[in-house]
Amino acid sequence: MVKEIGSVSERSASTDVSMTTSGNAEEGKTEIAVIEYNEPKFLEIVSAGEEEYLKDRDASSVTWINVDGVHDFEIVKKIGEKFGLHPLLIEDIVNTSQRPRCEYFDEHVFATVKMIYSKEDGEIISEQVSILLNKNCVISFQERKGDVFDIVRGKIRTGKGRIRKMGADYLAYSLIDAVVDNYFKVLEDIGEKIEAIEETLITDPGPEILQSMHKLKRGMIFLRKAVWPLREVISSLSKMESKFFKKSTGIYLRDLYEHTIQVIDTVETYRDMISGMLDIYLSGLSNRMNEVMKFLTIFASIFIPLTFIAGVYGMNFHFMPELNWKWAYFFVLGLMAAVAGTLLIYFKRKNWL
Amino acid sequence: MVKEIGSVSERSASTDVSMTTSGNAEEGKTEIAVIEYNEPKFLEIVSAGEEEYLKDRDASSVTWINVDGVHDFEIVKKIGEKFGLHPLLIEDIVNTSQRPRCEYFDEHVFATVKMIYSKEDGEIISEQVSILLNKNCVISFQERKGDVFDIVRGKIRTGKGRIRKMGADYLAYSLIDAVVDNYFKVLEDIGEKIEAIEETLITDPGPEILQSMHKLKRGMIFLRKAVWPLREVISSLSKMESKFFKKSTGIYLRDLYEHTIQVIDTVETYRDMISGMLDIYLSGLSNRMNEVMKFLTIFASIFIPLTFIAGVYGMNFHFMPELNWKWAYFFVLGLMAAVAGTLLIYFKRKNWL
Amino acid sequence: MVKEIGSVSERSASTDVSMTTSGNAEEGKTEIAVIEYNEPKFLEIVSAGEEEYLKDRDASSVTWINVDGVHDFEIVKKIGEKFGLHPLLIEDIVNTSQRPRCEYFDEHVFATVKMIYSKEDGEIISEQVSILLNKNCVISFQERKGDVFDIVRGKIRTGKGRIRKMGADYLAYSLIDAVVDNYFKVLEDIGEKIEAIEETLITDPGPEILQSMHKLKRGMIFLRKAVWPLREVISSLSKMESKFFKKSTGIYLRDLYEHTIQVIDTVETYRDMISGMLDIYLSGLSNRMNEVMKFLTIFASIFIPLTFIAGVYGMNFHFMPELNWKWAYFFVLGLMAAVAGTLLIYFKRKNWL
Amino acid sequence: MVKEIGSVSERSASTDVSMTTSGNAEEGKTEIAVIEYNEPKFLEIVSAGEEEYLKDRDASSVTWINVDGVHDFEIVKKIGEKFGLHPLLIEDIVNTSQRPRCEYFDEHVFATVKMIYSKEDGEIISEQVSILLNKNCVISFQERKGDVFDIVRGKIRTGKGRIRKMGADYLAYSLIDAVVDNYFKVLEDIGEKIEAIEETLITDPGPEILQSMHKLKRGMIFLRKAVWPLREVISSLSKMESKFFKKSTGIYLRDLYEHTIQVIDTVETYRDMISGMLDIYLSGLSNRMNEVMKFLTIFASIFIPLTFIAGVYGMNFHFMPELNWKWAYFFVLGLMAAVAGTLLIYFKRKNWL
Amino acid sequence: MVKEIGSVSERSASTDVSMTTSGNAEEGKTEIAVIEYNEPKFLEIVSAGEEEYLKDRDASSVTWINVDGVHDFEIVKKIGEKFGLHPLLIEDIVNTSQRPRCEYFDEHVFATVKMIYSKEDGEIISEQVSILLNKNCVISFQERKGDVFDIVRGKIRTGKGRIRKMGADYLAYSLIDAVVDNYFKVLEDIGEKIEAIEETLITDPGPEILQSMHKLKRGMIFLRKAVWPLREVISSLSKMESKFFKKSTGIYLRDLYEHTIQVIDTVETYRDMISGMLDIYLSGLSNRMNEVMKFLTIFASIFIPLTFIAGVYGMNFHFMPELNWKWAYFFVLGLMAAVAGTLLIYFKRKNWL
Repeated sequence: MVKEIGSVSERSASTDVSMTTSGNAEEGKTEIAVIEYNEPKFLEIVSAGEEEYLKDRDASSVTWINVDGVHDFEIVKKIGEKFGLHPLLIEDIVNTSQRPRCEYFDEHVFATVKMIYSKEDGEIISEQVSILLNKNCVISFQERKGDVFDIVRGKIRTGKGRIRKMGADYLAYSLIDAVVDNYFKVLEDIGEKIEAIEETLITDPGPEILQSMHKLKRGMIFLRKAVWPLREVISSLSKMESKFFKKSTGIYLRDLYEHTIQVIDTVETYRDMISGMLDIYLSGLSNRMNEVMKFLTIFASIFIPLTFIAGVYGMNFHFMPELNWKWAYFFVLGLMAAVAGTLLIYFKRKNWL
Repeated sequence: MVKEIGSVSERSASTDVSMTTSGNAEEGKTEIAVIEYNEPKFLEIVSAGEEEYLKDRDASSVTWINVDGVHDFEIVKKIGEKFGLHPLLIEDIVNTSQRPRCEYFDEHVFATVKMIYSKEDGEIISEQVSILLNKNCVISFQERKGDVFDIVRGKIRTGKGRIRKMGADYLAYSLIDAVVDNYFKVLEDIGEKIEAIEETLITDPGPEILQSMHKLKRGMIFLRKAVWPLREVISSLSKMESKFFKKSTGIYLRDLYEHTIQVIDTVETYRDMISGMLDIYLSGLSNRMNEVMKFLTIFASIFIPLTFIAGVYGMNFHFMPELNWKWAYFFVLGLMAAVAGTLLIYFKRKNWL
Repeated sequence: MVKEIGSVSERSASTDVSMTTSGNAEEGKTEIAVIEYNEPKFLEIVSAGEEEYLKDRDASSVTWINVDGVHDFEIVKKIGEKFGLHPLLIEDIVNTSQRPRCEYFDEHVFATVKMIYSKEDGEIISEQVSILLNKNCVISFQERKGDVFDIVRGKIRTGKGRIRKMGADYLAYSLIDAVVDNYFKVLEDIGEKIEAIEETLITDPGPEILQSMHKLKRGMIFLRKAVWPLREVISSLSKMESKFFKKSTGIYLRDLYEHTIQVIDTVETYRDMISGMLDIYLSGLSNRMNEVMKFLTIFASIFIPLTFIAGVYGMNFHFMPELNWKWAYFFVLGLMAAVAGTLLIYFKRKNWL
Repeated sequence: MVKEIGSVSERSASTDVSMTTSGNAEEGKTEIAVIEYNEPKFLEIVSAGEEEYLKDRDASSVTWINVDGVHDFEIVKKIGEKFGLHPLLIEDIVNTSQRPRCEYFDEHVFATVKMIYSKEDGEIISEQVSILLNKNCVISFQERKGDVFDIVRGKIRTGKGRIRKMGADYLAYSLIDAVVDNYFKVLEDIGEKIEAIEETLITDPGPEILQSMHKLKRGMIFLRKAVWPLREVISSLSKMESKFFKKSTGIYLRDLYEHTIQVIDTVETYRDMISGMLDIYLSGLSNRMNEVMKFLTIFASIFIPLTFIAGVYGMNFHFMPELNWKWAYFFVLGLMAAVAGTLLIYFKRKNWL
Repeated sequence: MVKEIGSVSERSASTDVSMTTSGNAEEGKTEIAVIEYNEPKFLEIVSAGEEEYLKDRDASSVTWINVDGVHDFEIVKKIGEKFGLHPLLIEDIVNTSQRPRCEYFDEHVFATVKMIYSKEDGEIISEQVSILLNKNCVISFQERKGDVFDIVRGKIRTGKGRIRKMGADYLAYSLIDAVVDNYFKVLEDIGEKIEAIEETLITDPGPEILQSMHKLKRGMIFLRKAVWPLREVISSLSKMESKFFKKSTGIYLRDLYEHTIQVIDTVETYRDMISGMLDIYLSGLSNRMNEVMKFLTIFASIFIPLTFIAGVYGMNFHFMPELNWKWAYFFVLGLMAAVAGTLLIYFKRKNWL
């Protein structure tokens, strides 16, 4: 299947909803960073040339090739072919609207995940990260610059933690773990928004709050679509103790799996909370409506008979005996007060006041 | 089971909803196109005669026989019998209201899918495509002329891509892939309609928008019915590495499976979005109702006591001392202003203004 | 478990909902028809006596014994015992509120299905059909006369189609197929009712439409209860290639299974459509309510201040300077027109007009 | 785990909802009945002493020990220990808030089910029945006197049916069958209540009907909790052809399983029906609201302009030329009639009348 | 994966909802209690030093090391390393927002559960308890002082029950059992709150009741998240009859499993009940609204025509013959009474009174 890059944006258009995705990935230049390390050694090339990222590697050290920007099909293809990647997968790297998934081959494992993170200005970004793991090499393809892997880079550089002592499989795990960890951060932001909306719900619920709630709800649909297949990916990786994932890495993957479940749990909880808030909002509307109606009813019902009485004595009949009685006026005023009082007591009894 | 063709339209009547299906397939003449190719060779007969589409084929090249129009039972039967198709399946080809499914036999694989595409005038068409794959031959039966296979034909003609180098199984895959690819296009159209409705929802939500939303919702039900069983078909094809599907085609089928899942995901997301919009619409109704009620309440509540006061001094009692006071009129006007002001402050406090 | 026939009606009372079932099956006389055939031979006894339906049969031909009316426990028991049926199953034949199911024995297969068909007057009837299949004999027990098997009888009589060439298993399949085929007819009727309701929904939705929708909804619940277990029955029959179902019949059963799935799909689609219509109905109610409220609000709001103004100048104060101004009356009329106009413009701006 | 009896009532308090359970089982004295039988022999001791229910039994006959009242922990413990019951199960017999379940041991099978029946005064009772089956003995523990087993006792006494010819496993089956049979009776009662409510819904729906519906709904939740696990119990018993359940009893258990499914089906159908009724009730509310609103709108809208006109000519301006015209009064009355007529025609057109 | 403790509170922030969790566990000092026992021996150290909780143990007795407070990473790490715990699990003990789960190793089983209990002031606390079980030792890590294990301690101290005769696996079971038992207590509290709300719903439903219901609903979401994974933990423990859990403990675990199911059942029942109450509340709102509307309609509709009549005879036309008729005034009063009476009868007929 030769899928032209042109058809890629078509697909992404139809499936990406309510969050900014880098649909138009053609911006900027592809940059490739190479990090090579083992316990004693550490070598980092921030912007590597072709001769560096395509050269042969031996098994003594772990190499991480990070590709920022997948719009340059030629570069991706060159790397893919160098590492024996199936042509279809090369296309899938470039097509940035894939579902998270993984594929097993004799020589490598290929996984696609969705990286979700927020920029400085609060905007939430979804970006596809494809990870290729073979014996001693991890290659990560990102849609563009900017990612959540700085913590991993930091650990490799400083040699803190286990990572320098472990193999390429642990590096691959670390990258996916960094992605999942960032989900928690995004969820935390969303949690804060939910709390803010909840407070507004009680104090001052206007119609614009409905829009916010539906926006959040849609964001949840979006997150779900990213994280449910991710769960399957990690589950499948942790079950398959292949030659790529050592037994010692298995426990890390199971731990990561637990974290993914936790993300899903939180997403589902937030969904439940948001629909709960929708219910509160709607019944709040009904409640306020009721209050308004009650006020009108009480107010109108008290004055309607009084106005009627006033109307009766405003009639111009020549023979209306009451009109000539001396205290009639005050008696009628008294009658009006009595009617109003009776109605007030009635409403009080009805519990409408 | 001999099912007369007459009974076919009955079934389709009861299950096809809200999209045009070619229930009446009897229009036009059955046309059969034959394409024969291998890497060096390419032969195309646009409108083949019986001697051409029924002749024996050797294994050196791949043959694609495309039948446009299945209303001519005799032709379908002749082809079916030539290729050893079970009589029941011949009937199923003619009965155009089948669910997508596949059947395995010793000599061939038989699959039915729903092709969904839009005509130039925007109308969406659902058409049943039955595909028969044996060792070196693919036969596709369509309800009528017009399909989504031009991209496949183009690749075969020009020799671009892999298709000329691959076997009949790859051709069968390419046809189903073209069908699934077109789902994305249709979904994109629907996505645009959803966006248009969303905008109208906020700016000018009339009752006719409800009709549009329910139409979309029903379209989603329809798509779901086409695509869920398709998923099973492709899953079953990709799992069964029979003699018909070579191992090298397996990865294409798995990729196709992923695309089908993506279609399903999008359909489900759209369903969620549409019900979200329904909720917004309904609570918008309530909101506007509330606003109207509040206006009436405030307006009426302010004037009701004023009118009452005016009524009191319109009474014709002979002895009403206030009537003779010089500034009484202006005092009463002042009283009215005071009452109105008090009420306005009260409503302000109640947050109704 | 000896379950007296008396307890049967009890059960049926509690589970049969909204469709006529032959709860009281004691009407009419049990009639037994025997058809015996093979490819050359055909023998039919429309109303067979005991010596005919109980006589021994050899394997050279297929026998179909159809029992209309199961209220005569003695006859059912005699037949059951002749064919080695378990006493419990004999009771289940008589108890006409069984779920569709099947049981496998060494000597025969026993299946219960729900036949659903409409009488000439449009009434929908649900009737339990128990089918016993052994080596060369099919016995069908129906609650009473009238069924959907005429098409099968016709084919046997005329020798059209495959049936005369096939064994008893094909006959059993044909009977169940006739039952399932009739589901499509009933669904078609329901589909027409749904369409009729939909049209009424838009043109003239009265409260009685709600009743119709809920009646349809309940009918769907009823159909679901009949067809979901039927699916399992056919699935289990098609999976179990026992000595009773030959391999060549397997494809027919799988085809039948597909039809059952199609019935289920349609039932579920109808359910979705009906709840969609309920939503439309309810939001239509809200919409009309809104319209009524808006009219009242606008109308009342315009006249309320005018009436107030009239009230003010209807007061009888001795000193009201305006009353003596010459053009005061016309000025006040003009003021009223101005107020009304202002309000109309306000409502226009609010988009309430 | 030694769970004191005191803690038992705590648990039952938190889980028993909306139906009377014998939470306080300490009433009355524990009574133990022993029935011993085989085909020729029958022996019944209505109120057995310790020496009778604890004596050793041989395999020649079946013994049924029925314990009414489980509050006397000592007696239950003695019997339990005599029959080798695990201490934990002895506690579970006494703790009457268990879920239906079964446990398999080398020497016996232990099952707990919920017996549901109605007393003479219509009250519905839920009672826990624990059944212990070993080689030739069935022991049933009930919370208190009064059960649904009289039909079983009758059959044993009179020797009618199969029971005297069968073993202890058939007796255990018969007891559970009697329990399930009674579910049908209870469901029938509920079905009648549903029908009664349905009729009221159409004729005279007051707010108290909502309470009844929610009571029924909650009853359904309760029944579900009893019957879903029961299904698993019977399924597990029917699948496990242990040394306790003979092969010949298997078909009875499968039949019982079908009945349980039927109970579940009915419960689910009732749930659907009740929520359908809730919908009808609520939209009925809206409908009536609409009717009331329409009346007010029409009525008020007609009189509001008339009253305004009257108000205008009630003004006391000195110069109001119309007042002096001779037929002005009648002209104004005519004007009022015209306004009212115009409005009536308008409402008619709007379809509000 | 080295996860800094700092990142722990982040996660807990995003997932803990509506109940107090000990997010800030840094309060107080870590205290470690050691209990060592076998059937004859009992030794308890309430506040053990390092030499005591880290010393080697022989297999003759069972040791329970209870750690109150996990904020001191060093102590947890020391204990973890002493008992061969994987570094990742040591981190998970400290990270108090884990889902309940269990992990199996060669030398030990590790399980995490959520302890839920109420403090004296009614506040509900959720606390993570990690339990490590090896051959003859149980180590429990709690977030802080205060737990539900006093009943276990009591039984060990006094030697009542089975615990002193059983191994470490029974101790681990007892701890989890105590946790689950406390769920029942918390559910009982919630059940009482539900009952209180139900009563208020009928007598005096204000808007604040909605808040309470949503709070309860959210509490249920919270409990579900704790108890569903717990079910899996216990199920997996009871299925795996490893060298740690003896066969004799199996029945206790299955019993515990049943209790967990009961907790889940109750939680689900409460959820159903709460949404039922929400429905009652909302339809109660509609009902009251209806009542208010009806009152206003009736009241206004009666006075509107009367006031109109009064207005007519308040007009100042010079020529109004009725005004001079003698009994006109009383006739008009009578007319008003007649109009009011007619309307009252009409409303009565409409069933609005």
